Amino acid sequence: MDKEEKMGVEDQLEMVAKAFVNHYYHLFDTNRAALAPLYHHTSMLSFEGQKIQGAEEIGQKLAQLPFEHCRHFISTIDSQPSPFGGGILVFVSGNLQLQGEEHQLKFSQMFQLIPTQHGSFFVQNDMFRLNYG
Amino acid sequence: MDKEEKMGVEDQLEMVAKAFVNHYYHLFDTNRAALAPLYHHTSMLSFEGQKIQGAEEIGQKLAQLPFEHCRHFISTIDSQPSPFGGGILVFVSGNLQLQGEEHQLKFSQMFQLIPTQHGSFFVQNDMFRLNYG
Repeated sequence: MDKEEKMGVEDQLEMVAKAFVNHYYHLFDTNRAALAPLYHHTSMLSFEGQKIQGAEEIGQKLAQLPFEHCRHFISTIDSQPSPFGGGILVFVSGNLQLQGEEHQLKFSQMFQLIPTQHGSFFVQNDMFRLNYG
Repeated sequence: MDKEEKMGVEDQLEMVAKAFVNHYYHLFDTNRAALAPLYHHTSMLSFEGQKIQGAEEIGQKLAQLPFEHCRHFISTIDSQPSPFGGGILVFVSGNLQLQGEEHQLKFSQMFQLIPTQHGSFFVQNDMFRLNYG
């Protein structure tokens, strides 16, 4: 039995969550236009309280954010299984550095990832908030 | 058709989320021992990275936190429907004042509420993080 087979469900969940977080923020910081395919037409984004539904609309919202470049620094990643449909809840906190800004902004964000028929995941739920001082 | 009947699903969701948040933090700040019944034996808490499962265990953890009194000040409440089982995702940010401490601590927390057969909700998922400076 190799190491991979011995991994518990919880380890697998954390591995998916970490891989997703790395992938998501790497895309966000290097090629925001490539984020839209991570969402489906049913997906929901709450961005600083603004609600947006659908992959295309969410992609447009993220592409049109009023800054060109940013960098996310991740502080914590928590994950739990959702009770239905094989979903994974991912809860992230960290700092966000906008180009040309001296200070970093604290943020927190949660995702629900839902498995696809092809063995990957899409983002069904996404809620983002800056944590002001 | 009265006002209540005209309410959309989204409004109802937000109403449940706000009522839950008010109830949860009121109990937390006035009678922490009364929080356990909000959870089920399947419930999960991730508290500053520590994972705890089950209503009784979660209740003990919350009761044993190393401070007697605290007060939560809520800044934002976001909510979205979970795609399965009628769940509601609730995402909270705010400040936490511990008794005898001068400074408030920023926190964020997410819950998944699942409907019961009796028309109320229980907390299936709970992830809490302090947002350090």
